[in-house]
Amino acid sequence: MRNLPREVIIKEVGPRDGLQNEKEWIPTDQKIAWINMLSNTGVREIEYSSFVNPKMIPALKDAREVGRKIKRNPNVVYSALVPNMKGLEFALEAGIDGASVFMSASEMHNQKNINKSIAETYPVLEEVIKEAKAVGKRVTGYVSTVFDCPYQGKITPEQVLEVCQRLVDAGADDLSLGDTIGTAVPTDVEKLLEVLLKHFPKEKLILHFHDTRGMAIANIMTSLHYGVTRFDGSVGGLGGCPYAKGATGNVDTNDVLYLLHGVGIQTGISERKMQQAGLYIQNLLGKLLPSRSLAYISNA
Amino acid sequence: MRNLPREVIIKEVGPRDGLQNEKEWIPTDQKIAWINMLSNTGVREIEYSSFVNPKMIPALKDAREVGRKIKRNPNVVYSALVPNMKGLEFALEAGIDGASVFMSASEMHNQKNINKSIAETYPVLEEVIKEAKAVGKRVTGYVSTVFDCPYQGKITPEQVLEVCQRLVDAGADDLSLGDTIGTAVPTDVEKLLEVLLKHFPKEKLILHFHDTRGMAIANIMTSLHYGVTRFDGSVGGLGGCPYAKGATGNVDTNDVLYLLHGVGIQTGISERKMQQAGLYIQNLLGKLLPSRSLAYISNA
Repeated sequence: MRNLPREVIIKEVGPRDGLQNEKEWIPTDQKIAWINMLSNTGVREIEYSSFVNPKMIPALKDAREVGRKIKRNPNVVYSALVPNMKGLEFALEAGIDGASVFMSASEMHNQKNINKSIAETYPVLEEVIKEAKAVGKRVTGYVSTVFDCPYQGKITPEQVLEVCQRLVDAGADDLSLGDTIGTAVPTDVEKLLEVLLKHFPKEKLILHFHDTRGMAIANIMTSLHYGVTRFDGSVGGLGGCPYAKGATGNVDTNDVLYLLHGVGIQTGISERKMQQAGLYIQNLLGKLLPSRSLAYISNA
Repeated sequence: MRNLPREVIIKEVGPRDGLQNEKEWIPTDQKIAWINMLSNTGVREIEYSSFVNPKMIPALKDAREVGRKIKRNPNVVYSALVPNMKGLEFALEAGIDGASVFMSASEMHNQKNINKSIAETYPVLEEVIKEAKAVGKRVTGYVSTVFDCPYQGKITPEQVLEVCQRLVDAGADDLSLGDTIGTAVPTDVEKLLEVLLKHFPKEKLILHFHDTRGMAIANIMTSLHYGVTRFDGSVGGLGGCPYAKGATGNVDTNDVLYLLHGVGIQTGISERKMQQAGLYIQNLLGKLLPSRSLAYISNA
């Protein structure tokens, strides 16, 4: 097998991608306490909230207050999801190190998710990227449904490449590639990476897997063999996509840590502290999260 | 990446390894109906029960009646767990195509599990293997804790090799290698297969993973890259090991099918029929099984 990287950077997206699909309201103070816990796990990147229209994602309507009140760890890069210039303005006021812009590689998913065609989305994101870069922020381009779309089926690596290229040309520092509905298998990951790694250095690529069909850890293992060193995780497997039927469960950060540490890759993250952060939010939500790790430590 | 095999053989072990750890009694008629459903999924091997002392595993105390009454599909190999000559006698009366003998690669786990040292276990199994072969039955040697033991920690590939070699020398047709507590990561699988494949043809090796930490699918993917073509699965992720703390959850046969079919490997099994068999036993047990696939189709 190919060599594995020595070190991997995890971005914890639970406070954004995890919570955005939860019906249970988590009070702002408790969100802040949770993000502060995550900040002390050793994780180096946290996506703390989303500055989309609060009517669209009521679970994150307190993004501005959360951004102002979380205790910032100087070793952590704090980012937030930013849909447009208005969102960027609020995010900059609340404080961000990085802005995450987002669109879909699927025309139909993009339309359903952000109510614009792909062509109409580019200029909006390009303006946000330009402005965020102008004030010294990092920008990540999130591209969703990079393997399959719940509305139009298979997405080709070439379709993904086109969107990625536009975002990078506009100034995005890196790309987060989302298996939004959790359908990919390792051969799909190989096909996509074979194309994208011809155009972008591996350091620019972040893989964002959902564990809907239990494939996420295998997909991460395959990505590692291609030299990918950056992954999104959501503690406890919290979250999904509100616009994609059946799309439950980001990959659990704890499962990712178990894999990475097990195969000898460093992350700088304490598994114990990350488990505690998972138990904390599981307790607040009052339901069992779809997490192998949390089930394991609860039974042990 | 290395080439993947074109075809894989799954053995469904839910009726044995799955049920043996369930407290809920499944009435014999319903077990038989369930095994008959499994027989019609296209699966080619089913381990239908265990002929250990019923006091040890009361959930399977009806092994003899189950064996006599299941409707045999001529395309399916039916096997059962057989601990000793008495068990073999009952199994032969009830009807088996194959006998599964079992021991542990870990001295302490073997002691706790079957109350004998490894050295004391060999002659018992050798007698069973010899007799089963003499009457024309296939024999599989199950070796548990091939990666980690809950009592004595890491098990080396050389320790596993020694047990495997003894079983093969005694006449075992194949070997089922169990990650009994579900702790292995892909690099562990690589290390074990690098050793075992120097001594045994890949067709002799069956990999038996538990998904306790969510690593099973990644471990199967790694095994496939080594040319392994035989895996155990338990529909719905049913089961565990009653002697190993925290050892919940065989890998779900449906998750395995999703992976295999997704990467283009044939199994001959209908995913829809296997899901129905999973929903049937989930319903009988009256609790949600730890299955990504069943959760997915229930939410869809």
